[in-house]
Amino acid sequence: MSKYIIMTLSGCLIVAVACSPQNTQRQNITESTVAPAPNGLTLPANYKDWRVIAVSHRTDNESLRAILGNDIAIKAARSGHTNPWPDGTMLAKLVFKDTVHEEDWPTATVPGKFIHAEFMVKDAQKYMQTGGWGFGRWLGDEQKPYGNDAAFVEECFACHTPMQDNDYVFTHPVTLP
Amino acid sequence: MSKYIIMTLSGCLIVAVACSPQNTQRQNITESTVAPAPNGLTLPANYKDWRVIAVSHRTDNESLRAILGNDIAIKAARSGHTNPWPDGTMLAKLVFKDTVHEEDWPTATVPGKFIHAEFMVKDAQKYMQTGGWGFGRWLGDEQKPYGNDAAFVEECFACHTPMQDNDYVFTHPVTLP
Repeated sequence: MSKYIIMTLSGCLIVAVACSPQNTQRQNITESTVAPAPNGLTLPANYKDWRVIAVSHRTDNESLRAILGNDIAIKAARSGHTNPWPDGTMLAKLVFKDTVHEEDWPTATVPGKFIHAEFMVKDAQKYMQTGGWGFGRWLGDEQKPYGNDAAFVEECFACHTPMQDNDYVFTHPVTLP
Repeated sequence: MSKYIIMTLSGCLIVAVACSPQNTQRQNITESTVAPAPNGLTLPANYKDWRVIAVSHRTDNESLRAILGNDIAIKAARSGHTNPWPDGTMLAKLVFKDTVHEEDWPTATVPGKFIHAEFMVKDAQKYMQTGGWGFGRWLGDEQKPYGNDAAFVEECFACHTPMQDNDYVFTHPVTLP
């Protein structure tokens, strides 16, 4: 099976022909089979392939995090235009239980079990009530949507409100050479 | 200015036409201007765009790390074929000074200043003397090659030798849904 993708991205024309069994397999296990969040947000496709924006370690809930961004987010992060983040930005936080490296390296904290993936999607108009951000979280390997109803975003937004001066985002993108 | 890239990658044909000023700028600051490591290893191009394999936090030297991999590494990591990693694997470790989140979030450790990027490049034949891995490290924003001469790899390899049963790699790839 082959698959053609034609898209315009950051002023680039990209034509990709995926033709190997490896890529076909990955196309088949898309996020489209995962239930949307109670607010209607769907799990962004291919978020595991997004590029890294930062990492973090929270000792209050013992978790390690990789913060990734879609192409719009990466472009904004690398050019320093993240306050506000542009519409179309999608940020993913992959959260793992922290654990000690198993081979006798007690000072190395490494990712254990996958806890959840959570997302912020920027659309200043659509999500005006929550700082311009749509929130979503999918739990565990089964990727179960978090929240009983659409009001779950109030919890997300309340937690993020202290970061109002940083466009409600906790993450500061890393600076690379 | 436009740039054409034609490459075969994991069984895929990818044709990219980069035509925006943004992309032109990024093409100009490639890793090709960085001096090679004393063992001849050159800084892999576009490593900042590689996908995430893991993260870690070392409290002995107070650093946070993002571990990224090239396409061969990602394919191996996601299919569980990492012992040994296949030839062509390139692993990057982006290392940052750990610091506390600046906005009154004392239990969140986040990346501070960029310390260095270090690499393992798998070629079982070429690097037979060091477990099949070529090592390289580039320091700071100036990306200065680490080591006075080619013997610097003895230090790298000595540190990695305890991980012999894991193909000399400390990192265990994260498991994602």
